[in-house]
Amino acid sequence: MSITYSASGVNIDMGNRAVELMRDAVRATYNQNVLAGIGAFGGLFDAHALQTMRAPVLVASTDGVGTKVKLAAQANRFDGIGRDLVNHCINDILVQGARPLFFLDYIASSRTIPENAAAIVTSMAQACRDAKIALLGGETAEMPGVYLEKEFDVAGTIVGVVERDNILPRNNLCTGDVLIGLRSSGPHTNGYSLIRKIFADVPLDTVFPELGDDVGAVPCACPPCACPPCACPPCACPPCACPPCACPPCACPPCACPPCACPPQGDHKGAPLQDALLAPHRSYLPLLEKFLAQPSPLKALAHITGGGMIENLPRVLPNHLAANIYLDAWRIPPLFQLIQQRGNIATPEMFRVFNMGIGMIAIVSQNDAQDFQNALGEESFVIGELRDGARGVHLGE
Amino acid sequence: MSITYSASGVNIDMGNRAVELMRDAVRATYNQNVLAGIGAFGGLFDAHALQTMRAPVLVASTDGVGTKVKLAAQANRFDGIGRDLVNHCINDILVQGARPLFFLDYIASSRTIPENAAAIVTSMAQACRDAKIALLGGETAEMPGVYLEKEFDVAGTIVGVVERDNILPRNNLCTGDVLIGLRSSGPHTNGYSLIRKIFADVPLDTVFPELGDDVGAVPCACPPCACPPCACPPCACPPCACPPCACPPCACPPCACPPCACPPQGDHKGAPLQDALLAPHRSYLPLLEKFLAQPSPLKALAHITGGGMIENLPRVLPNHLAANIYLDAWRIPPLFQLIQQRGNIATPEMFRVFNMGIGMIAIVSQNDAQDFQNALGEESFVIGELRDGARGVHLGE
Repeated sequence: MSITYSASGVNIDMGNRAVELMRDAVRATYNQNVLAGIGAFGGLFDAHALQTMRAPVLVASTDGVGTKVKLAAQANRFDGIGRDLVNHCINDILVQGARPLFFLDYIASSRTIPENAAAIVTSMAQACRDAKIALLGGETAEMPGVYLEKEFDVAGTIVGVVERDNILPRNNLCTGDVLIGLRSSGPHTNGYSLIRKIFADVPLDTVFPELGDDVGAVPCACPPCACPPCACPPCACPPCACPPCACPPCACPPCACPPCACPPQGDHKGAPLQDALLAPHRSYLPLLEKFLAQPSPLKALAHITGGGMIENLPRVLPNHLAANIYLDAWRIPPLFQLIQQRGNIATPEMFRVFNMGIGMIAIVSQNDAQDFQNALGEESFVIGELRDGARGVHLGE
Repeated sequence: MSITYSASGVNIDMGNRAVELMRDAVRATYNQNVLAGIGAFGGLFDAHALQTMRAPVLVASTDGVGTKVKLAAQANRFDGIGRDLVNHCINDILVQGARPLFFLDYIASSRTIPENAAAIVTSMAQACRDAKIALLGGETAEMPGVYLEKEFDVAGTIVGVVERDNILPRNNLCTGDVLIGLRSSGPHTNGYSLIRKIFADVPLDTVFPELGDDVGAVPCACPPCACPPCACPPCACPPCACPPCACPPCACPPCACPPCACPPQGDHKGAPLQDALLAPHRSYLPLLEKFLAQPSPLKALAHITGGGMIENLPRVLPNHLAANIYLDAWRIPPLFQLIQQRGNIATPEMFRVFNMGIGMIAIVSQNDAQDFQNALGEESFVIGELRDGARGVHLGE
């Protein structure tokens, strides 16, 4: 009997079909700089714009999204993973001050399911379009006997550019500088092996009331108003000016509770676990792009990925500065509280694995902090400060 | 009981140890253009050299090495896979005329074994050094539950640059142009799912006599001389001029067999299967670099990867030209013959899956062919020509 390549477990036709399905989404990311993309041996990107820069530096990073892929496979939901991957990579080079230029992807599994591969790449393409970058190339590999059945992996590479004198972190970090925390949209792409262990016996469509139905935002955790309800009889006068109302004015003490400033909270019926766990990694490029060129108040950025604040903040600190985190400065999103409770995980371990609701930290001087927060365009939190001391992170001191 | 990240199947310490083990090899690839590498969120590459170009175009490609990783895992040999990956990527952008600038890698497995990950990255680093490019970044991911036990995958991204008017293929391909084939060092990185199926019941250390001990070169397959041995009595005269020899001259017909021009063949004791199968993908950059700048006889290059000549040659051909391959122009290396025999695979299928001993094809005009071959610096083969006809490949017509 003669063996064909298809009989050996690799189906070239399935790969070609996947390419067909993703082609339009990929092409939609092309801008005038893309001279050749899908179908070429390598993607061609016109770099003439670098010639008008003072001192261009290319910034490149490769990463995956960890075992979040396993949850996506389990939930049969592939439309967020591509966004996860692109946004993770965008943030990774953003912290060096770079704007992204283009992205390339790698998807592999034991057997290519064209629709799933296309859904992943389409999701990447959408994130690329949002960031105005090209999805310049990629590879969809079929690897029988390497991946477990029904599992897949994705990896991506981003290439961006920064003016040499705009590279972050700057060398003027000093004691008293303020850490501004920006919200994450969930665990982003880190800690999923732990998450999967903790929720191993929980169906992914289980609705947890505490997760709220506004997954991706920060649910309101303001203390409820404890003032006694007003017992005055309601005024029954008709809503007009005549005859004048003669009801006695309410004499109850006014409520002194601080007003809730949280965004609208939906109907609080809870959210399925998979919605909370698969919320895509957000990109901080739209928020921070305006601060990349000099002069700028931005001194440093730390992307809170694997290793949490504990390991990622020190990567941008000089030897003589420590970061002090105010643990009460923001509300830990309920998903992380749920994870911590169910896993009985110590708080320092939580901060070493998860972003705890803060996906990006900007460092600015004390004087610039308020203006920086106002200019950001969304709510942010003063979550800590730099202090003299050995490079490291101190929680809640 | 409290769960730690390590208990969930991810061992950050093992990852850190892998980074420690590979650090020196990676750093050895840095040149003066690398401003930040291992440890940074993204690698920084000084692009000032692009500013002195006329019209720089960045060329980028992402790829893996297929299920050759599975054979490497099975043979517990990780020192060639990194070289496979880098050289494959170098060749992929070489065919567009690009010189590589830097490389990034991704390695993933269910459990990081620091020594294996370091061996793979060290092998990548060596290939990067050979090509004078930087291993600018990478990611070693631990993905419990995604990869089968003891398996791993690698992917890599290369970024290079080409002057816009040096991009290959050129638009002057025409009928009569000559295809020059360059030797492969083995199956390179394609067809391994089929190979594994064919040799599924053969221990990897089995020695096959026909593979020769010069794995990676082309063993001599010249037909043995069939002329009858000379039966004349040997001249017994002393080796001096006096007295003159009176023996009758030999009257046997002279041997007309063509002389063997093959390189030295070693001792022909055969080679273990795994040596032949894991021979690293070679880079054609050293051979072809001198032809990248204009003026050059080089009109096009085709990297013979997945899909073989059948699918890769058409990628550089215009609609009105077909490639005609002379099947007797080079010796199919014995490994491919062994594969074909054991798998009872039809020749067209072989040419659709394997490189069949030709890893790169250069297209030049008829007039330039001889000079091009002379200038290459190693033996090459005229393996075909372009003819008018629908874009495609014809074998042996």
